[in-house]
Amino acid sequence: MMQRGFEPREFEQRTQAAQRMMQAAGLDALLLSTEADVRYFTGYLTRFWESPSRPWFVVVPAQGKPVAVIPSIGAALMAQTWVDDIRTWRAPDPADDGVSLLADTLNGLGARTIGTPMGYESHLRMPLADWARVQAALRGVVRDDAGIVARLRSVKSAAEVAKITQACAIAGRAFARVPQIARVGVPLSQVFRDFQRLCLEEGADWVPYLAGGAAQGGYGDVISPASDAPLVAGDVLMLDTGLVWDGYFCDFDRNFSLGPSDAQTEAAHARLIEAVDAAAHIARPGATAAQLFHAMDAIVTGGKGGSDAGRLGHGLGMQLTEGLSLIPQDHTVLEPGMVITLEPGIETGEGRMLVHEEDILITEGAAVFLSPRSGPAMVQL
Amino acid sequence: MMQRGFEPREFEQRTQAAQRMMQAAGLDALLLSTEADVRYFTGYLTRFWESPSRPWFVVVPAQGKPVAVIPSIGAALMAQTWVDDIRTWRAPDPADDGVSLLADTLNGLGARTIGTPMGYESHLRMPLADWARVQAALRGVVRDDAGIVARLRSVKSAAEVAKITQACAIAGRAFARVPQIARVGVPLSQVFRDFQRLCLEEGADWVPYLAGGAAQGGYGDVISPASDAPLVAGDVLMLDTGLVWDGYFCDFDRNFSLGPSDAQTEAAHARLIEAVDAAAHIARPGATAAQLFHAMDAIVTGGKGGSDAGRLGHGLGMQLTEGLSLIPQDHTVLEPGMVITLEPGIETGEGRMLVHEEDILITEGAAVFLSPRSGPAMVQL
Repeated sequence: MMQRGFEPREFEQRTQAAQRMMQAAGLDALLLSTEADVRYFTGYLTRFWESPSRPWFVVVPAQGKPVAVIPSIGAALMAQTWVDDIRTWRAPDPADDGVSLLADTLNGLGARTIGTPMGYESHLRMPLADWARVQAALRGVVRDDAGIVARLRSVKSAAEVAKITQACAIAGRAFARVPQIARVGVPLSQVFRDFQRLCLEEGADWVPYLAGGAAQGGYGDVISPASDAPLVAGDVLMLDTGLVWDGYFCDFDRNFSLGPSDAQTEAAHARLIEAVDAAAHIARPGATAAQLFHAMDAIVTGGKGGSDAGRLGHGLGMQLTEGLSLIPQDHTVLEPGMVITLEPGIETGEGRMLVHEEDILITEGAAVFLSPRSGPAMVQL
Repeated sequence: MMQRGFEPREFEQRTQAAQRMMQAAGLDALLLSTEADVRYFTGYLTRFWESPSRPWFVVVPAQGKPVAVIPSIGAALMAQTWVDDIRTWRAPDPADDGVSLLADTLNGLGARTIGTPMGYESHLRMPLADWARVQAALRGVVRDDAGIVARLRSVKSAAEVAKITQACAIAGRAFARVPQIARVGVPLSQVFRDFQRLCLEEGADWVPYLAGGAAQGGYGDVISPASDAPLVAGDVLMLDTGLVWDGYFCDFDRNFSLGPSDAQTEAAHARLIEAVDAAAHIARPGATAAQLFHAMDAIVTGGKGGSDAGRLGHGLGMQLTEGLSLIPQDHTVLEPGMVITLEPGIETGEGRMLVHEEDILITEGAAVFLSPRSGPAMVQL
């Protein structure tokens, strides 16, 4: 059985790397408030974030371990992490829901310039009214974290890669069992429920994300919940899952054909695989996100510059999507340890499309497929 | 099969109620950015929010339907809701990720005073840097929504209650099948996976939340992920689930005894049921959240004023927890249509506790249990 969690050394390295970057950026402390950012520096793993009722904070000081400023209900679990300094209040507290404890902590650390993620993909997970109160009580000022957290999280350690690999393998086994659950006449909503069951049976801790579609010759969109409409002969069924193992996601999909598919749809699917192969072929250190986009876009649109889906892949890890985007405007340079999805889509008619997605690891050499690479032909159900 | 979604009339009523309250509060528009708030006014239901990469906005103007300001990837799904005015940009766009489209929309509506949720349990789901840009581009000013959205969402319509009832019934059937999956020697992590499978088999759309614990005479906390440790004779196993049906949650737990339990643990469990009954008995219109807290606290601590868990229940609906808290400081007056959990905990030793939770509906008369009310004795496995 694979080891859960991380060695304390991993958190030490993450924290020390952040502290080096903080020093270069002139930051005395980092303030973190979201699930993934808090977990990245502490190892604090719980599904309790599903409840929006309590804010949670971690402060990374200029030196030493992170400091947790959290509701008392989380103290016992946080005490199991490598963090020593755990400050708690009994939340929810309408009079002062962690505001003064957080401000006191930052003031006590002597933090004059505090960074918090303010850029792409970030949000501050606390009420704006309380945020104003915190800022008013601070002796220091808060500004953007200079992208430090996103930058650190974008390159995965070997231990992180192992967890994503595990998640991908679990999803791969679940996809291989789709013929057991999907056939003509089964409602799509039932397929969704059964597929999540397969993911769990194959070892997923949980299945935060499942989307998909089923329609003749392609589907209309890729983010809708499942309808109760039964599968019909000739449908293309797509399932796209982000399941989690020990806090790390996979994110890839598979297309299936309900009975024989027509030549045009088969050709479109093969084109998607060709696009993935083209991007994977150039996905090496030094290549950019934009270059991967163009490699795929040339094949799926003839180079028109993308579609309304907005991108042809993205980073992946502690969140379903994180970090770079495969779009013309993203010139992020690939580095070993980055894990990304290749997710081209192709129009198959008015308002219809196919989307294919695989997960790859950037290495010193050729990219490694973490998802079990699909062949050009759809699996027929 | 129960009807999914809502009649357009439901969204009309929600919107008109908001607009009456906006007028009273001097607000020209509401700005919404989170999954539940956006869905409340539009019916936009998707698991795609799991991806943090794209912001989504809905503006409720002083009159007329809400306006959606969203990434183009969501246009097709939003077009299936009652919303007519759907404005899109191709996200992610590093140069302007919806900032100018949102500002133009609010300016175009002539909104001078804009409310957005800034209070308890809220957050703004967009990068702070972009939020500063939006505010700079607005002709109006943004302030707190005066609690309008939280107030509206706290009282459920009959159609909403039906969905929560359905979620509770599904979880009830899954809990009834726990003897099939949990016995001495089975790792807790396996029980967690299997219980989620049971929830899906019984009809859950998905299972966003599962927590629990298993230990001798009580568990140490109630938010930890499952370990791989096997169940032991004499353990109390607790499973606490928030599963979703058509976008609405249940949230309740059950305690099981692995073989016979000792008299002290049984008595503690019976005390929890007694506490729930005491709170349910007074849970009628006019009673306050604080009164329910004290009714339970008197029984579980002898009136010491609670524990580090922070509260003995909370509102429930589109989120696992939402709205009022059963704490001494919350004097929210109960109203028909509120759905709340009763969640007393009791210490059973140093660092050990039992927690029991049920879901009830406040009506004109006596509260109605939506979860299948537990008896005083734990089910023995």
